[in-house]
Parts: sequence; structure tokens; C-alpha cells
Amino acid sequence: MSQPKDRVKALLFDVFGTVVDWRTSIQRELTAFGKARGIEADWTRFTDDWRGLYQPAMEEVRAGRRGFVVLDTLHEENLRTLIERYRLPSLTSNDVDHLVRAWHRLTPWPDAVDGLYRLKRSHIIGTLSNGNIGLMTRLAKHNGLPWDVILGAEVTRAYKPTPEAYTRSAEALNLDPSEVMLVAAHNSDLRAASTQGMRTAFVARPLEHGPDSTLDQTATAPWDIVTTSFHGVADALGSPRYM
Amino acid sequence: MSQPKDRVKALLFDVFGTVVDWRTSIQRELTAFGKARGIEADWTRFTDDWRGLYQPAMEEVRAGRRGFVVLDTLHEENLRTLIERYRLPSLTSNDVDHLVRAWHRLTPWPDAVDGLYRLKRSHIIGTLSNGNIGLMTRLAKHNGLPWDVILGAEVTRAYKPTPEAYTRSAEALNLDPSEVMLVAAHNSDLRAASTQGMRTAFVARPLEHGPDSTLDQTATAPWDIVTTSFHGVADALGSPRYM
Repeated sequence: MSQPKDRVKALLFDVFGTVVDWRTSIQRELTAFGKARGIEADWTRFTDDWRGLYQPAMEEVRAGRRGFVVLDTLHEENLRTLIERYRLPSLTSNDVDHLVRAWHRLTPWPDAVDGLYRLKRSHIIGTLSNGNIGLMTRLAKHNGLPWDVILGAEVTRAYKPTPEAYTRSAEALNLDPSEVMLVAAHNSDLRAASTQGMRTAFVARPLEHGPDSTLDQTATAPWDIVTTSFHGVADALGSPRYM
Repeated sequence: MSQPKDRVKALLFDVFGTVVDWRTSIQRELTAFGKARGIEADWTRFTDDWRGLYQPAMEEVRAGRRGFVVLDTLHEENLRTLIERYRLPSLTSNDVDHLVRAWHRLTPWPDAVDGLYRLKRSHIIGTLSNGNIGLMTRLAKHNGLPWDVILGAEVTRAYKPTPEAYTRSAEALNLDPSEVMLVAAHNSDLRAASTQGMRTAFVARPLEHGPDSTLDQTATAPWDIVTTSFHGVADALGSPRYM
């Protein structure tokens, strides 16, 4: 691309799929929960279905048919929908709460924490996620993700890929979009960020949707950086290495 | 107070005066700037006047006479007002920018960084400041303040002591106000937080306004914690000690 990468002042990260492996984590939590409660179900399919209801639920907000609601609320509504669809025994509100909060305990990809520490030395690092502040804060606390700042849907009052989700995040940092790089495992997210003038780094996470997925296996456009880990981003940006 | 302190899940901090010593920092930056540019002025008085214009400027927003504007903008407007009032030579926009950003480089009180690291091990720690996100992020980066989350005016769209500045900050963390403790060096801030149901910790910063100030030297109400450093807060909350 034409602009030098050293103009980049802040790296903002997509979180679900890019920083954390939501599928393995949720699958594991649901399986453990089912085992503890003696409830049988295809928890892998349940996991994919739960995630599958995420985009349509946000679309109601993006399309203006519904006022802004935080992701925790959408997660809970979608969980209740699936409990009915799977004809599971009804759960206590404590159990529902426990499962909704499984999204606060997702496990990072192996390179993520170490890579973020490295990038934090050279740049402002923050989230640009559709997750709400409470969720993002606990997820960081749970994993030691060393964010400088938590941005995203709840700060901008706009769900990605709505343009304002990107432009207002840059603005919140007193930066021009061209001084901000979105790091994401999803081509569509990078496309939307790029349209708003942001720099782009694609980090392939080929196992995000399981071993059989064909989604987002490779970069579909010449993003500024194309790599397979946060260390690849750090190398491309010249962030200092640890010993 | 009646509720046990172990219900407290998050500590939110006032920043200017409580975490950082704005007066010494701004005074030093202005003095160095004046020396470099050959501009003479009473920089101590200039510092106090600059800070003095802060509350009236926010009051325009709080009273609804003006839409929400970030603190960086108010700092710049107030600086330009003082440049005229002090009949200083007009400054380049780079110089103005440099001075406005002096508020991004304020120095912490001696116990602040170490105390925050300690408190971070037992609680969510975040800002509840009237400063904007970009300012707070750079201030943290400059000093290594290990915030879990940056909340405050820009997230809640309300300047303290407006009630929503407190209630929406708790809400952003999925917490009831009673699960949040405000840590501040200012009795008025604690009073407003307490009215919204928050817990309260007063940390005396007797030198905030200079050696002759009589303001906020002591707690004026029985706050949950009354102390003189962040370690006092940590001790009262039972946060683990380092070796």
C-alpha cells in the first residue's frame, strides 16, 4: 500500500476469532456443563448454532429495527432460543448466567498474549469488538490481555461493520483512521475498516470455525499485512523482540 | 458502612489530582516551554488559571447549554483564552498542540503506579474521569498505569458529578453501583458517587493545589475508606501484598 506503516499509532483488534478461540472454549464449557447436569446434546453443533445466531441478532440493531443492546443480552436471548430448539430441560437463571459468562472466559490463541505484550511496547493496542465493555474487561482479566483501551460497539454505539464502529473508534483515540490498523481474522471486517481509511492486518485463524471450515482461510485482498500470528504483525511493524 | 467491602468488584479512579499530580506537571511543562521560547509569565498562576477554567467549561455541557465536547477541546479553548488574557505572543498550532498534550503526560503521585498494580490483582481497576479516552489512554501509556478499562465522561457522555457519569460506568461493567468503589481525592466527587449507591475511598492528596491550599485536606464524611495512598486502599480491601 502507498502509506508507510510507521504512521500507524494504534492497533485495534477484532477479538472473537482473532484473539480468542471462541469455538473450542464454548464447546468445552457446554460439554462440562452438560456432563455436570446430566444433560445430553450435540454441544459442538449447539456451539456453532449459538454463534450462528449472533449476526442475525446484531443485524436487528444495525438495521435500526431495535435500539442498541449489549452483546451479553443477545447471547442470553440466543441461548434461551437454543434451549427451546434443542428441547433441553429449562435452566435456572444461575445456569443461564454461568453459560452467558462462558463468553467472558474464552481462551486465547497460543500466540495472542505474548504477541500483544510485544505490540504494546510499540503501539497503543485496543479492542474493536462487538462485545460489550463488561465482557471485554473480564475476558482481558481472565487471560491477561494487556489492552491499553477497550473500544468497540458499546463505546461507538454501532456494531461492526457499520462505518461508525470504525470511524468513532479512531476518533476516540484522537487519531485519523489512517493512523489506526485493524487486526482481524475476517476479510469482511478488514474490508469495512479499509473503506473507512484504516490500515489492515489479516491474521489467519484457519481453525476458528472448526477443522472443516473453508471460511476466511486466506486473505482475499492485498491487506497491508497478511500473516498467521500476532508475532507476524509485530515483525511487519518492526516492534521490538524479546530475548 | 453497612455493606461489606468484599462485595466490591471494581475500583474506579478519579484521575486528575487523585492518580496524577497535574499541577506540578503542567507548571513544569509550561516553565520549560516558556524558557525554550523566551516567553516570560507567572507559570504557576497560569497553571492554576488553566485548571480554574476547567469546571466552568464543563458546566456549559452539564447544564445543557452546549453539546458534549471532549476535554482535550476544552483544554485547548481555555489555553487560547489564557494566552490572550496573559497577553502572550500568539503561538503556532504546533505549540498549542504540544501544550494541550501536556495533559497527556502528567506525572503520577509516588504511590500510584505501584498501588494500582497491587489493586489490579484483586479487582477490576479503571478510570472514572472527565478526561477523554484518547487523553486517558496516552496518560496510562506514558506512566504505565495498568488500567483494565477506561471509563468516564466520553463513555457515559456525562461529566461528573452528573449522576449518569457514575451509574452508566457501573452499568458498562455489568455491575450494580454498590459493587463499584470510587477512589478520589475530592469529597464532592465521592458525595456524588455515594448518592448513586457506590462505595467510596478518600485518598488525601494535600498538595494537589499547592502548599497553601486548604481544599480537600481531609475527609468531610465517613467514606468507606479514608487513607493517604493507594496502598492504604489496598490494605483496607485486603489486596495481596508484594514481597
